[in-house]
Amino acid sequence: MNHSDYMAQALAQAQLGLDEGGVPIGCVLVRDGEVVGVGHNRRVQRDSAILHAEMDALEATGRRPGAFYKDVTLYTTLSPCAMCTGAILLYGIPRVVIGENESFMGEETLLAERGVDVEVLGDAGCRQLMVDFMRDRPDLWNEDIGV
Amino acid sequence: MNHSDYMAQALAQAQLGLDEGGVPIGCVLVRDGEVVGVGHNRRVQRDSAILHAEMDALEATGRRPGAFYKDVTLYTTLSPCAMCTGAILLYGIPRVVIGENESFMGEETLLAERGVDVEVLGDAGCRQLMVDFMRDRPDLWNEDIGV
Repeated sequence: MNHSDYMAQALAQAQLGLDEGGVPIGCVLVRDGEVVGVGHNRRVQRDSAILHAEMDALEATGRRPGAFYKDVTLYTTLSPCAMCTGAILLYGIPRVVIGENESFMGEETLLAERGVDVEVLGDAGCRQLMVDFMRDRPDLWNEDIGV
Repeated sequence: MNHSDYMAQALAQAQLGLDEGGVPIGCVLVRDGEVVGVGHNRRVQRDSAILHAEMDALEATGRRPGAFYKDVTLYTTLSPCAMCTGAILLYGIPRVVIGENESFMGEETLLAERGVDVEVLGDAGCRQLMVDFMRDRPDLWNEDIGV
């Protein structure tokens, strides 16, 4: 498995979210080559103000000791917002792989400043899903980023 | 109602969390003098990696349009960690009142740098609850902050 394979799983999560009527962002947490948690944005599905994709994946991964996260790579289809960036910093996740940051630029600078290894794949599939969603549901999108 | 009254409600949430066997941190969100959401850390109670007190209070407040948060003051018994700080920044909450920051110093500098009005009350009750908990349950406390 390489970056593209894990990002494909994150994108499948995003598509699942869209199919459920939600915000199409997905996330996969990988540790030592093993997927330890997957998630997608569930704002609509769970009527939630906090279940962004990254948060949902962290929750799916369960309660873990701090040391667990120091070997985790987080794959997310979209550049992470301030909340998800903060969660990454809280747990000391050292590597974040981002599908795309053209439709929305999150807190990549803050992540990098704090020593997180950030890689952006520029994935066209991730981008198209968001561009279409922002066009079709600006109400949901704005709510999701607090605008 | 003033700062002390709202902080007393946050502290009551923290005490409730302790009584439930959880991490004793509480939070209250106030808008135009009205309490719009309360919460406490539910790591233990919900087996959650993301339900810090501030996140729990945001979730209790429900899905709201972005403009809603711009009149909210967040009261938390303890200096907010990176995750909760990020959530505050995501939603653009402009004012944060902190019970104490001696037992744990969170991301107050980042909040202030981003223009959030931060006030620390130095509340002895909030501090004692955390000092006792850190002494009695260092395992839970370290897990909660990713150490």
